[in-house]
Amino acid sequence: MVAMKDLVAFCKRKGFIFPSSDIYGGLNGFFDYGPLGTELKRNVKNLWWKNMVQDREDIVGLDSAVILHPNVWRASGHVDGFSDPMVDCKVTKARYRADQVFYAPISVSGKLLGYICVTDGEERDADIAKKTKALLKARNCSQEKPDEIHLKPLTEAKPEEFALIPSPATDKPGDLTPPREFNLMFQTQVGAVASEAGIAYLRPETAQGIFINFKNVVDSTRVKLPFGIAQIGKAFRNEITPRNFTFRSREFEQMEIEYFLPADETLWPNLHQKWIEERYQWHLSIGLRKEWLSFDVHEKKDLAHYAKACTDIMFRYPFGVQELEGIAVRGNFDLTQHQSCSGKPLEYFDETLKTKYLPYVIEPSVGVDRTVLALLVSAYDEDEVNGEKRVVLRLKPKLAPIKAAVFPLVKNKPELVEKARGLFSRLQKRWYTAYDETGAVGRRYRRMDEIGTPWCVTVDFDSLDNDTYTLRDRDTMQQTRLSEAELTAFFEKQLQ
Amino acid sequence: MVAMKDLVAFCKRKGFIFPSSDIYGGLNGFFDYGPLGTELKRNVKNLWWKNMVQDREDIVGLDSAVILHPNVWRASGHVDGFSDPMVDCKVTKARYRADQVFYAPISVSGKLLGYICVTDGEERDADIAKKTKALLKARNCSQEKPDEIHLKPLTEAKPEEFALIPSPATDKPGDLTPPREFNLMFQTQVGAVASEAGIAYLRPETAQGIFINFKNVVDSTRVKLPFGIAQIGKAFRNEITPRNFTFRSREFEQMEIEYFLPADETLWPNLHQKWIEERYQWHLSIGLRKEWLSFDVHEKKDLAHYAKACTDIMFRYPFGVQELEGIAVRGNFDLTQHQSCSGKPLEYFDETLKTKYLPYVIEPSVGVDRTVLALLVSAYDEDEVNGEKRVVLRLKPKLAPIKAAVFPLVKNKPELVEKARGLFSRLQKRWYTAYDETGAVGRRYRRMDEIGTPWCVTVDFDSLDNDTYTLRDRDTMQQTRLSEAELTAFFEKQLQ
Repeated sequence: MVAMKDLVAFCKRKGFIFPSSDIYGGLNGFFDYGPLGTELKRNVKNLWWKNMVQDREDIVGLDSAVILHPNVWRASGHVDGFSDPMVDCKVTKARYRADQVFYAPISVSGKLLGYICVTDGEERDADIAKKTKALLKARNCSQEKPDEIHLKPLTEAKPEEFALIPSPATDKPGDLTPPREFNLMFQTQVGAVASEAGIAYLRPETAQGIFINFKNVVDSTRVKLPFGIAQIGKAFRNEITPRNFTFRSREFEQMEIEYFLPADETLWPNLHQKWIEERYQWHLSIGLRKEWLSFDVHEKKDLAHYAKACTDIMFRYPFGVQELEGIAVRGNFDLTQHQSCSGKPLEYFDETLKTKYLPYVIEPSVGVDRTVLALLVSAYDEDEVNGEKRVVLRLKPKLAPIKAAVFPLVKNKPELVEKARGLFSRLQKRWYTAYDETGAVGRRYRRMDEIGTPWCVTVDFDSLDNDTYTLRDRDTMQQTRLSEAELTAFFEKQLQ
Repeated sequence: MVAMKDLVAFCKRKGFIFPSSDIYGGLNGFFDYGPLGTELKRNVKNLWWKNMVQDREDIVGLDSAVILHPNVWRASGHVDGFSDPMVDCKVTKARYRADQVFYAPISVSGKLLGYICVTDGEERDADIAKKTKALLKARNCSQEKPDEIHLKPLTEAKPEEFALIPSPATDKPGDLTPPREFNLMFQTQVGAVASEAGIAYLRPETAQGIFINFKNVVDSTRVKLPFGIAQIGKAFRNEITPRNFTFRSREFEQMEIEYFLPADETLWPNLHQKWIEERYQWHLSIGLRKEWLSFDVHEKKDLAHYAKACTDIMFRYPFGVQELEGIAVRGNFDLTQHQSCSGKPLEYFDETLKTKYLPYVIEPSVGVDRTVLALLVSAYDEDEVNGEKRVVLRLKPKLAPIKAAVFPLVKNKPELVEKARGLFSRLQKRWYTAYDETGAVGRRYRRMDEIGTPWCVTVDFDSLDNDTYTLRDRDTMQQTRLSEAELTAFFEKQLQ
């Protein structure tokens, strides 16, 4: 698996993803997608939309505003509860999410020597060993063997322990502030007067935009339960410690479906399983590696009070196994809250049962940026061709930013160039196609391999005679001779 | 032309556009796109992207963050200068953009009686007449004829006049505050500590995200001047008086191109003209009515100091002729500013001239929401069919949310339904297709006409015998008998 530092460098070098505001030193937690990253992201979003909205009869789309009425976030519970526990190091001013900092008492033969404290990450185990050794030394116990170490997140520390736990930055007890809750919503002010009434929030999820439009959608379309509303859009979270490249950033994009169904306890378990299976198959279909996908079935005790079940589809990123998509059964919590806070009836009239109720909902919610990152991790490969290292991005053709590249064998033969330009301009009308005439054909292949272009088409002297072209496959590197009609038919079939 | 109040009601009723946060009473200046509006908007954006990026070799895409480093907006001049003059009525607390409020001295035979003050809008002329009449009456001059009235925007009022100009709300002089500048950027705070350093802005335009990535794009791709960078994305402006439905809203979407060219005074005039022509043709190609499109060529004296030229493509909305797209020649102002503020060299090395320079740029910038609104205005039509009023949305097929609808003639004949379902599911894989079996066929046609579906396909008893279907055209209402292969070939051709 590619190392993150190599992937990050690759993404910048080839124009997939840049640190945002790069020339100003970057802005922590924000990213700009370059030319190829933008195409890859568009392909992910367009395919999700095609598969989830266009190919189905039971889901319609929506595109709600980023800034909604502030009462939306009061009703949803985000104003009061959408927060992370945060601690500060008083000395270094470093800030941590308390659930990402770990501490442990260190004892020798049952006698407490003190505490160690480390942050989460790749260095964690090395840090534990180092800090334990230092503590033993400071207590003149270097020769002794410490008792087994039990690490706990800082959120589980008792108040009386807090004075004894050192800061992970200074290793001095008492340097950390106690954890306090920090709301992750970005706040802004709508209207020209700074006032309580004008406070608004950037949405931390797209889902609430769907719930508040439930009635409008039911009234303006012909949907019948069960049906879903799908939305793709930006969301914003003021993360305390954004990290792992685009995985946990402060500005990101979501693809969310709220799939409404009758409020009937016997119905949701099957539908939930169907959604988990469907979304898992989708991730396979776009090319995520099967061996790196897994499920995390939440235990009942870990669910929010209103949730009936939740299963996450996990992906093994270079920095660990992390959530890619969550598929939660939320009951009718959200609609109940919005009905009560807005005072507007949101009930659905069930024509079969001749009764009104607030439907249940299943929520498959996936991050666009997390999907793009998982695709890059899955596709990035290095192999050797004729003794030379080759970087190759094995993206599925339908996801690849550029579908095909057309090359004249050499650039100083006008008849080759002319024929290649003609072919290029016809293909370009159908698919995102590149034209390249610079350097040896082998080098041109490498350039296309590296950015995931599945096919290269070379126009050579035989093409002038018999109107056939060499189609070269990125993965097998095999070459086939095809006419333009055969070429077009092949692309059509592969890109269906 | 459709009246705005009818269009707004139509958009809500059919699920094109809802007031945002509708159940909470709405949020002024924000809108949510419903199922059909979302599809229409996607079609506009995807077509622009295809035509401006994929179909060309000289433009690449970008997708930068909404929240950029705050220094970006210092460099661009937005922190200091992106503001509108604002006045308040001290009594009613109403707030106005000073350039949208107009005043005039009223005199009789050269003798000043006082001032009137009105707001912009459809009622303006009626207001002027009413207020003039009231003033004449108050001055006991009801029988006299006032001198010619010269209206000026409030921004041109001299300080000494201000005390004499009444508020448009109360008609009492002195009730308005003097104009003051109000910055239109939404502010927020990045990071957990409220501090000057953490202040950030929601981008008021997507363009600056392009300029700050100029160097990254040049370094990661093989672009050569002249070339463009295209971006579609949300922008936010805290408008003092959002109005005219989605035309001037606080959250909107832009499609912008920065087209870079050598810094040579002889080159830009031709390229500018080409861009104006190309973008005009594009608006025609998507179906905007030619008679409602026009140009506004800015006079030299009205240009910003760094701008070399600017032409707006205007559209005649129901509320007046307004800017749809701006095509400005910005010299190299933006790159110069960012190079100087970031301290990072942004010069382009010209291999032909063997020299480095900051290129000039032409900026075709169009609003997605303004385009969608212009499309709805252009397409909305009412006619009469068999003595009944019909609402029909004459959208070009490639823009229509739903491309085709399949109907079984009646729903209680299983063999018809089965055949229709089969046809539907095959068409649906290629194009956004609807299936409808409810009500008389005539009513089903009306429903599809109203939302702009160009074609309806009916499966009847003859279809069972000879595998042909009735294709009915939305605009001509003509019916043709076609096989499935002919149908598919027809759609393919029309939707190219």
